[in-house]
Amino acid sequence: MEAIMIYMPAVLAIIGLIYMWVKRSWVMKQDSGDGKMKEISAHIYEGALAFLKAEYKLLSFFVIGASIALAAIAYFVPTTHYLIIVAFIFGAFFSALAGNMGMKIATQSNVRTTQAARTSLPKALNVSFGGGTVMGLGVAGLAVLGLTGFFILFFNYFMGGEWTNTDQMTVVLETLAGFSLGAESIALFARVGGGIYTKAADVGADLVGKVEAGIPEDDPRNPATIADNVGDNVGDVAGMGADLFGSYVATVLAAMVLGNYIIKDMGGDITGEGFGGIGPILLPMAIAGAGIIISIIGTLLVRIKSNDAKEAEVQKALNIGNWFSIFLVAVASYFLVTWMLPAEPMTMGFFVGGQEGFEMISISSLNVFYACLVGIIVGGVISAVTEYYTGLGKKPVLGIVQNSSTGAATNIIAGLSTGMISTFFSILLFAVAIWASYAFAGFYGVALAASAMMATTAMQLAIDAFGPIADNAGGIAEMSEQEPIVRERTDILDSVGNTTAATGKGFAIASAALTSLALFAAYVTFTGIDGINIFKAPVLAMLFVGGMVPVVFSALAMSSVGKAAMQMVREVRRQFKDIPGIMEGTGKPEYDKCVAISTEAALKEMLLPGVITIGFPILIAFIPKLFGYENVLIAEMLGGYMAGVTVSGVLWAIFQNNAGGAWDNAKKSFEAGVMINGEMTYKGSDAHKAAVTGDTVGDPFKDTSGPSMNILIKLTCLIGLVIAPILGGHTEGDIPNLNEKVMVSGSKDSKTISKEVKMDKNSEDDFVTANVVVTKIENGEEETETFEFEGTEAEVKSKIDKIE
Amino acid sequence: MEAIMIYMPAVLAIIGLIYMWVKRSWVMKQDSGDGKMKEISAHIYEGALAFLKAEYKLLSFFVIGASIALAAIAYFVPTTHYLIIVAFIFGAFFSALAGNMGMKIATQSNVRTTQAARTSLPKALNVSFGGGTVMGLGVAGLAVLGLTGFFILFFNYFMGGEWTNTDQMTVVLETLAGFSLGAESIALFARVGGGIYTKAADVGADLVGKVEAGIPEDDPRNPATIADNVGDNVGDVAGMGADLFGSYVATVLAAMVLGNYIIKDMGGDITGEGFGGIGPILLPMAIAGAGIIISIIGTLLVRIKSNDAKEAEVQKALNIGNWFSIFLVAVASYFLVTWMLPAEPMTMGFFVGGQEGFEMISISSLNVFYACLVGIIVGGVISAVTEYYTGLGKKPVLGIVQNSSTGAATNIIAGLSTGMISTFFSILLFAVAIWASYAFAGFYGVALAASAMMATTAMQLAIDAFGPIADNAGGIAEMSEQEPIVRERTDILDSVGNTTAATGKGFAIASAALTSLALFAAYVTFTGIDGINIFKAPVLAMLFVGGMVPVVFSALAMSSVGKAAMQMVREVRRQFKDIPGIMEGTGKPEYDKCVAISTEAALKEMLLPGVITIGFPILIAFIPKLFGYENVLIAEMLGGYMAGVTVSGVLWAIFQNNAGGAWDNAKKSFEAGVMINGEMTYKGSDAHKAAVTGDTVGDPFKDTSGPSMNILIKLTCLIGLVIAPILGGHTEGDIPNLNEKVMVSGSKDSKTISKEVKMDKNSEDDFVTANVVVTKIENGEEETETFEFEGTEAEVKSKIDKIE
Repeated sequence: MEAIMIYMPAVLAIIGLIYMWVKRSWVMKQDSGDGKMKEISAHIYEGALAFLKAEYKLLSFFVIGASIALAAIAYFVPTTHYLIIVAFIFGAFFSALAGNMGMKIATQSNVRTTQAARTSLPKALNVSFGGGTVMGLGVAGLAVLGLTGFFILFFNYFMGGEWTNTDQMTVVLETLAGFSLGAESIALFARVGGGIYTKAADVGADLVGKVEAGIPEDDPRNPATIADNVGDNVGDVAGMGADLFGSYVATVLAAMVLGNYIIKDMGGDITGEGFGGIGPILLPMAIAGAGIIISIIGTLLVRIKSNDAKEAEVQKALNIGNWFSIFLVAVASYFLVTWMLPAEPMTMGFFVGGQEGFEMISISSLNVFYACLVGIIVGGVISAVTEYYTGLGKKPVLGIVQNSSTGAATNIIAGLSTGMISTFFSILLFAVAIWASYAFAGFYGVALAASAMMATTAMQLAIDAFGPIADNAGGIAEMSEQEPIVRERTDILDSVGNTTAATGKGFAIASAALTSLALFAAYVTFTGIDGINIFKAPVLAMLFVGGMVPVVFSALAMSSVGKAAMQMVREVRRQFKDIPGIMEGTGKPEYDKCVAISTEAALKEMLLPGVITIGFPILIAFIPKLFGYENVLIAEMLGGYMAGVTVSGVLWAIFQNNAGGAWDNAKKSFEAGVMINGEMTYKGSDAHKAAVTGDTVGDPFKDTSGPSMNILIKLTCLIGLVIAPILGGHTEGDIPNLNEKVMVSGSKDSKTISKEVKMDKNSEDDFVTANVVVTKIENGEEETETFEFEGTEAEVKSKIDKIE
Repeated sequence: MEAIMIYMPAVLAIIGLIYMWVKRSWVMKQDSGDGKMKEISAHIYEGALAFLKAEYKLLSFFVIGASIALAAIAYFVPTTHYLIIVAFIFGAFFSALAGNMGMKIATQSNVRTTQAARTSLPKALNVSFGGGTVMGLGVAGLAVLGLTGFFILFFNYFMGGEWTNTDQMTVVLETLAGFSLGAESIALFARVGGGIYTKAADVGADLVGKVEAGIPEDDPRNPATIADNVGDNVGDVAGMGADLFGSYVATVLAAMVLGNYIIKDMGGDITGEGFGGIGPILLPMAIAGAGIIISIIGTLLVRIKSNDAKEAEVQKALNIGNWFSIFLVAVASYFLVTWMLPAEPMTMGFFVGGQEGFEMISISSLNVFYACLVGIIVGGVISAVTEYYTGLGKKPVLGIVQNSSTGAATNIIAGLSTGMISTFFSILLFAVAIWASYAFAGFYGVALAASAMMATTAMQLAIDAFGPIADNAGGIAEMSEQEPIVRERTDILDSVGNTTAATGKGFAIASAALTSLALFAAYVTFTGIDGINIFKAPVLAMLFVGGMVPVVFSALAMSSVGKAAMQMVREVRRQFKDIPGIMEGTGKPEYDKCVAISTEAALKEMLLPGVITIGFPILIAFIPKLFGYENVLIAEMLGGYMAGVTVSGVLWAIFQNNAGGAWDNAKKSFEAGVMINGEMTYKGSDAHKAAVTGDTVGDPFKDTSGPSMNILIKLTCLIGLVIAPILGGHTEGDIPNLNEKVMVSGSKDSKTISKEVKMDKNSEDDFVTANVVVTKIENGEEETETFEFEGTEAEVKSKIDKIE
């Protein structure tokens, strides 16, 4: 059993993907309705594919460019292997594939949901949530399959499938980081591009359609309405999917890196503990794999019976599935942790006290389980906090409603303060999470907290993706002029979807924050520094710069939406003027032109934020080299930058998401009517108009700049991780420390038990000479052999590695 | 000459105060106009005094409470002396006195400016700028006098007026920190309370007066109009004054602390270098003293000749005075630095490389001068950046104007993005400033950069305070129904005042940021830790918490304004309804009721932000003690918190100030008319209404929450500094390191040249035994003497100190 555990997560991922395929076939077999519905659905489907196609074209250039950059790193840094490029390309490809699959199923489920809603609500829920399930399992399955597949590959390639030492495992994991980098790069473009797309279309459609022309939302006479519906899929489905795909991969990777560090702390070899001596590295993958099966079980619980069900019942059905899967993850974590981690207490390096207070402390595997629990609880509580600050009928939203009565300005001030004040509990929660999970099991604990939280990603995404599908289904019902009961049913689903969208954003932030912390910790171990001292002025300066980047990034994303929306407004106005009979429904709007505007604007506008995200860490790594700074100091500077981006990014993510969500629901409150100064106030009142203004400000907050923060902080930390080996003391002038003795506790009677290496570098020709004493056990007897090598550092190291 | 340098700054401060008195008498001798003007002016004067009186009452309770807390610290921490309470009380008193003087002269100058404007513009400028000058010199003079006075006192009390060792000087400076803490505490209440006061009155007056009743601004029929004018004085004059008073004192103090650290790095005794061996400690005070005289010279250059002058000429006159004084500070710094610092290169501890990369590096005094230049340049550039992002006719403001044409939502989005994007250059500038000044002269360089920048505080405040005086003068002209020419003249001054207000805010942020950095560095030296390692999870957690506090603080301040404004709105509505003939000008509004509402609201609402500011650092220092954390780790956690508050606070200060300033000027742009989509658009248009909405959102941003950030970050770092000795290894279980040899390079032939101390602590009774070998030169011959002591740690240390 133990021997095959390395393959287990991949097998579970494949099971998840097979189930996904079965579910997909079921959804596709559902009736897709009559001619008009099919036509509209086809428009949305084609618009979405058009965007994806354009995006992939741009991305392929990016992937080629980034691959060349990685090749350059691999050329100059001896420990970075060219295989990182392969991992990178596959990471990008898998992420794009997951997004593609998600978009396709979402744009096929929408019309089928509309059709199902013509017969019954339970059926409509089944179809829409079925579409979400396909999306969720696709993303999670591909993430786990890709990551574990490449791990098996690299483990065999670099280490021959057997434990050698932590340095070689570091090479395996550094190469694997390419997969994560690829996935997160795609996420950047999907989240930012998708966010700009969806809001440009939404704001553009509303400004001319609703405000100027006075036609309802989703009216087929509005040329931007298809772009608006495409936007829901591009932003909320593909963007969210890519975001969580990236978090999932990065979290597990970071936990693996820190698992390797534990093995190092325990003496560099724990093969006696079973699992091929890589139990702490396999554990996060095992939890992820288990999470896929658990998510499938969770989705099976989501069902309602009554056709007269209201929002509360639908919400309850989703909650049951969600909470049960979270509970199962906690149970599974307990068994996996106690089974896979060394039985006797593990030693871990902890910072317990002062400057010199780095101590080895023994912790039991139970401690690691407690850390997992911390992650699971934080995931739940942060969703609840988000729900409180953005939920209909809760105090903060009611406060914004009251402030709408004195005009747009007071509405805006109230919304901004709500978003700002909501950071209080969220950040205290993070602080406690960091503190507690570290206290339980060091940074490995922090990473496993994130892994345990992310284990239900498939379930979370299913709940998340179901919202936009229902939203689209409503749009199609409106555009194809269905009976009111159809729209009523899709509206119930849509309304629940709005709540899950808000809590889903909370989950996404929490996962991004914990992922970044885990990556941050992994970064420190990769660079080999002992810490990041912000009392060094250059490090402090970078903390400031890092803090600034999320703010500027948000500003760029917000103004991009404004620019793109203006273009959309102009095009819609033009069509209303130029196309005869459009308002009477006899002329046909040119939907594709609006789709093209959103697509082009999104692709163009995502470039600058992308350049900032990728460019800053690289500049920080290279500019100080020109000033002759030492690598160790540069590594600390980059670490300071990463910390600045993470702290500020998490703050701005919470602020923007919650302010946006609160404004949105403040506006929605007017639909059912609200009591202001003792008077019932409805849609169309001045207070409602003020609330609409707030919602318009909140749109880019919650759907563009806010969610982009997740990607920004994760990608920043990942780029740091990939750069880390350059700063990790492997470069010119430094001799890698290979003098460590590799102790073997196994019982095989032929084994290399140590390589003692002495390296010297000739300062004139940069060649190194190495003297290697290898101690082996041959047929039970100890032998020593001596080797001498000369050549470039990379050559010599490769020769040393090849000694059996 | 050298011997009296310690008294020089105090003498210069007294000269400044005498000049201030002369100037004050001149202003008071000016004609204060006719009956109606006098009456209105008296209302404003009384309203302002009423606020100050109520504020001081509340503050005296606070001062008593804080004094008790300080007494507790002094009781438990052996190195903290009870005199810190005296220093604290005087710091609070001096700050309050400066604010009081400033408010009084401002509320006396306003009516005299109106009267002067009846004759000529140059005269009106003279009077209003004269009032500003009195304010500026009062603040700077009292700050320097208080700080240097207490330094002389403590230097004599603790060290007998002669250099002994750096440990004793640390006690002097720790006690002096009480003065700074007192000043900054008053600033908290003045800035936050003043900010809430001014905006509650402003927004309340506008909402009912301008919007509902349709009467112009400053109309005497509006019951809130006096409160509005009082607010200008309370917020912009007293608040800004207290802010800069606090920055000034804190900056110089931090530089003195770091100067002491340099002496330590140089071997602990540089009496051979003259200035009683405290040159590096005296230097920042000397620069501050010189700055007062230079500011007087600068103010003399501010004058215009032509009665037909426009904004440009007035602005030019102010600029000439400002730039000339900045130039003189640069020159003076050069001479003071090269004269007062040791002639041969100084050794300073630098972090140059990796973990162990703390090295002693020799730098020349010229390097320190370069650091001063960095500060002076940053002060100038940051004002220019602020001016760009908030200035009339500049691209960002024009962009907001364009976005007003599509409604309030796009105006708000544009304003928010402008504020956010403005952080880019400002933060890069800070980063470069930190980096460069540290590279030149370590953290002493950072602190001296701040000191040099702050040297022209008197001039900056004169320019700053002149704005609200002119604004008030315009209000009085309106209320007392003067000829239009009078209002035109005061409007010219007011318009220039708006620009100087924006750049003044930039200066205040820059000073607060550099001050905090200097305090942060001083904190690290006080606690004796080597750095702050954010790779320790508890430290990282505190970085997050620190980052959150400015956001929550801002939210509280903003919603306080909303609440208070609502109260004001209700009161004004009531008066309009209840007082007969008020709209016809026959009934007299009850101004004092509105003044009372603003006063009470400001005092009540400032409490919670105050509690957060003061409470968090104290909780962070004490809660971990309950968990048994080591002092050194707690010191790092508190340092992480301070860094989080500083980084996030600076970001939010820039964001809020610049967004608010830009919205304000976008609205003002409509007064002269703006070109939107090829059409001239003026006040009253829909676009203008959208811009008014933006301005209303921006009001609390730029006048309440934004400026409060300065105080928050400085006070946080100051509290850290005062707590530092508790965490600084002076408490139970630690033995201070007195083994350092004190080397003397002087030529006196009788001197103690070293004390070698070996201390042991008895674990049972906590008593220490000390064995001290003292090496002396008596009449040119070296002698050694041995002492043995036993007793409590404090007793023994005091005995060791007393050995001559």
